[in-house]
Amino acid sequence: MKTYQTMSKDELTSLKTDLEAKYKEFQGMGLKLDMSRGKPSAKQLDISMGMMDVLNSEVSLQCEEGIDCRNYGILDGIKEARELLGAISEVPADNIIIYGNSSLNIMYDTISRSMTHGVMGSTPWCKLDTIKFLCPVPGYDRHFAITEHFGIEMINVPMTNEGPDMDMVEQLVSSDDTIKGIWCVPKYSNPQGITYSEETVKRFARLKPAAKDFRIYWDNAYSVHHLYEDQQDFCLEILEECEKAGNPDIVYKFTSTSKISFPGSGVAAIATSKNNLADIRKQLTLQTIGHDKVNQLRHVRFFKDLDGIHEHMKKHADIMRPKFEAVIDILEKELSGLGIASWIKPRGGYFISFESMDGCAKDIVSKAKEAGVVMTGAGATYPYGKDPKNSNIRIAPSFPTLDELKQAAELFALCVKLVSVEKLLEQ
Amino acid sequence: MKTYQTMSKDELTSLKTDLEAKYKEFQGMGLKLDMSRGKPSAKQLDISMGMMDVLNSEVSLQCEEGIDCRNYGILDGIKEARELLGAISEVPADNIIIYGNSSLNIMYDTISRSMTHGVMGSTPWCKLDTIKFLCPVPGYDRHFAITEHFGIEMINVPMTNEGPDMDMVEQLVSSDDTIKGIWCVPKYSNPQGITYSEETVKRFARLKPAAKDFRIYWDNAYSVHHLYEDQQDFCLEILEECEKAGNPDIVYKFTSTSKISFPGSGVAAIATSKNNLADIRKQLTLQTIGHDKVNQLRHVRFFKDLDGIHEHMKKHADIMRPKFEAVIDILEKELSGLGIASWIKPRGGYFISFESMDGCAKDIVSKAKEAGVVMTGAGATYPYGKDPKNSNIRIAPSFPTLDELKQAAELFALCVKLVSVEKLLEQ
Repeated sequence: MKTYQTMSKDELTSLKTDLEAKYKEFQGMGLKLDMSRGKPSAKQLDISMGMMDVLNSEVSLQCEEGIDCRNYGILDGIKEARELLGAISEVPADNIIIYGNSSLNIMYDTISRSMTHGVMGSTPWCKLDTIKFLCPVPGYDRHFAITEHFGIEMINVPMTNEGPDMDMVEQLVSSDDTIKGIWCVPKYSNPQGITYSEETVKRFARLKPAAKDFRIYWDNAYSVHHLYEDQQDFCLEILEECEKAGNPDIVYKFTSTSKISFPGSGVAAIATSKNNLADIRKQLTLQTIGHDKVNQLRHVRFFKDLDGIHEHMKKHADIMRPKFEAVIDILEKELSGLGIASWIKPRGGYFISFESMDGCAKDIVSKAKEAGVVMTGAGATYPYGKDPKNSNIRIAPSFPTLDELKQAAELFALCVKLVSVEKLLEQ
Repeated sequence: MKTYQTMSKDELTSLKTDLEAKYKEFQGMGLKLDMSRGKPSAKQLDISMGMMDVLNSEVSLQCEEGIDCRNYGILDGIKEARELLGAISEVPADNIIIYGNSSLNIMYDTISRSMTHGVMGSTPWCKLDTIKFLCPVPGYDRHFAITEHFGIEMINVPMTNEGPDMDMVEQLVSSDDTIKGIWCVPKYSNPQGITYSEETVKRFARLKPAAKDFRIYWDNAYSVHHLYEDQQDFCLEILEECEKAGNPDIVYKFTSTSKISFPGSGVAAIATSKNNLADIRKQLTLQTIGHDKVNQLRHVRFFKDLDGIHEHMKKHADIMRPKFEAVIDILEKELSGLGIASWIKPRGGYFISFESMDGCAKDIVSKAKEAGVVMTGAGATYPYGKDPKNSNIRIAPSFPTLDELKQAAELFALCVKLVSVEKLLEQ
């Protein structure tokens, strides 16, 4: 097979004509598909419907400690929910506080609290001229949107196969006290599906930040979200590593059941050191009288324990795996060997990260859109929406049905080819 | 009957001996009762248990607009929930956003957002040297705790039978641009059970604040929480009044079902002008992907509409009314005519506001506590916990059973007498 780069102008021109004809066909099909967000499909949600039956008017809504979950109170969350979410987060129940339905909301609140009240007694960030965050790229757009919203300057840190470039992280964090945090998705990262290596986690735990109020924002969104039972990534538990390294307070871990039970109606939590929890409680006790304990109880009664979670996640995997494989197969079949694209085959998480030729991502995404397939906006995986090479595209295979997905992936591959040819012809 | 003030020293001393003997008896009973918070009783929660049955695995979790409530999205809340909460708030569904389980959380977030991002483009409050709030007193301790947490200076405004002293409010708000808000509980106020008069609401709507980012924080916590079907307070709807007065953006209304369904697992909402909602959405869309729509659906399927809410509230009233009456009866029987106390008999809400002789509240509350009855801390109804006359005590009759409550009220009345006698003997 010839790579596009070695083709002559004539070959490219003729190829372009073929591809344009195929594209027209797709346009005629009136597709309306969405591969933009990491949104579970209806079929995945159906496997949690039993959760709607565990509580009813005949059942006691008291938790194990005898507290009436219907009433006010219990700021930290009921014990059995702290145990369950603690197990998912690999921390003791005493190191976790359960919030509402959204871990994103916890992250937002964590930054917001640091802005107005600082971190464990530090100067509130809003009183400082400059605040910076490190952002491993490509990364999660909603993380970057939060820091941008608060006027926090974002610094790109390239991802490697083992996680963020730790030489750069160490150098920056130890030398600049305006750097107050780093966004991390340590397991099956968004969008690359990379899991941080043991060495990376250990280096995080051993960081010596110039800023006392520097924290690692460890968004463990996909901790139990494997695609293959026999090929699971393992990520070292960071809270314990930080403790061992004499850095007990340096990390906030975030987790939720959004992609375990129902995305809109799960439970989310923060896991961190007792010092950090005490600091958080000072604010939380003013912010709310307590989060939804009935929903916590519903989750525990349905999932029971970590084994129950793992069993449940196998069902998700059974639905997700064929979708990931279908996209990867189509990418392999259509694009491999052409020298115009690369991608990572993940073992878990919600995304496939795709690299086009430099300068092509935006055009590919808009071409796909014109033919009815919505992708995540090009650039979204970078702070400020600015992908310096304009090459990264996040593919989210979860939401469409398998048949729709195959069509969408075929169209996507076609758009990649077409835009690449156009690009090469311009040169 | 002789008032305590007209008694001789000898009479008081002999009375004191009697009261002390009775107090000892109470101490011997080993009471353990809580009249401290506006917390519904288990019996009240039982009337909402049907809400646990309306959703189950056989039922569609799609809302009327065909959206799958289980999944991500719908920042404003599902339409039927906006209609239901809109009806409770007396505003159109388009003027409301549904949040999670806690209206306190919405208030906190509203202040927090104003601190970091200002109000509709104004300077973020954290960039200003001084921010002040007006606080009608006595008022709700959790309101004051939020403003204190953000370093906002609080100014007491006395309550009258018609609401806050509006001469003072108008004068302050129009002359001082560091005053950015006022906390209001307009109907069955916490703790006095006063409902703002029509004239008061109209004067609020016509305020001409010096600060463009001044807002009225209208915590309509008890809008449908009547005790008597035939004696209901009416409070003019403020959002429409503000519009009429050419002040459409001046008010945020807060509401929740916390004391309608389950305190820990209700739905809460903010109702305000479309300009304010647009401003709020800019932040909210970064803070969360959406609140718990399944719980919204559960509420709508259970309550159906405003008629359903009113029918349901009658059941609450049937449980609450005898408790309020028992406390009032005991206060009347034990304390009226003695010249040492006054109280307001409310027609709704969750509290009875009690005034002791000046300088006695703290001692009464601690005496009650020593005999096993926990009241709201004296001073709690004032900013910074400082009741200048040390005379206001908030009684919360909802949580104990009727029998417990009678005991608690008897003890309370006894403590009032005892502390008053001690006070008079000191003089």
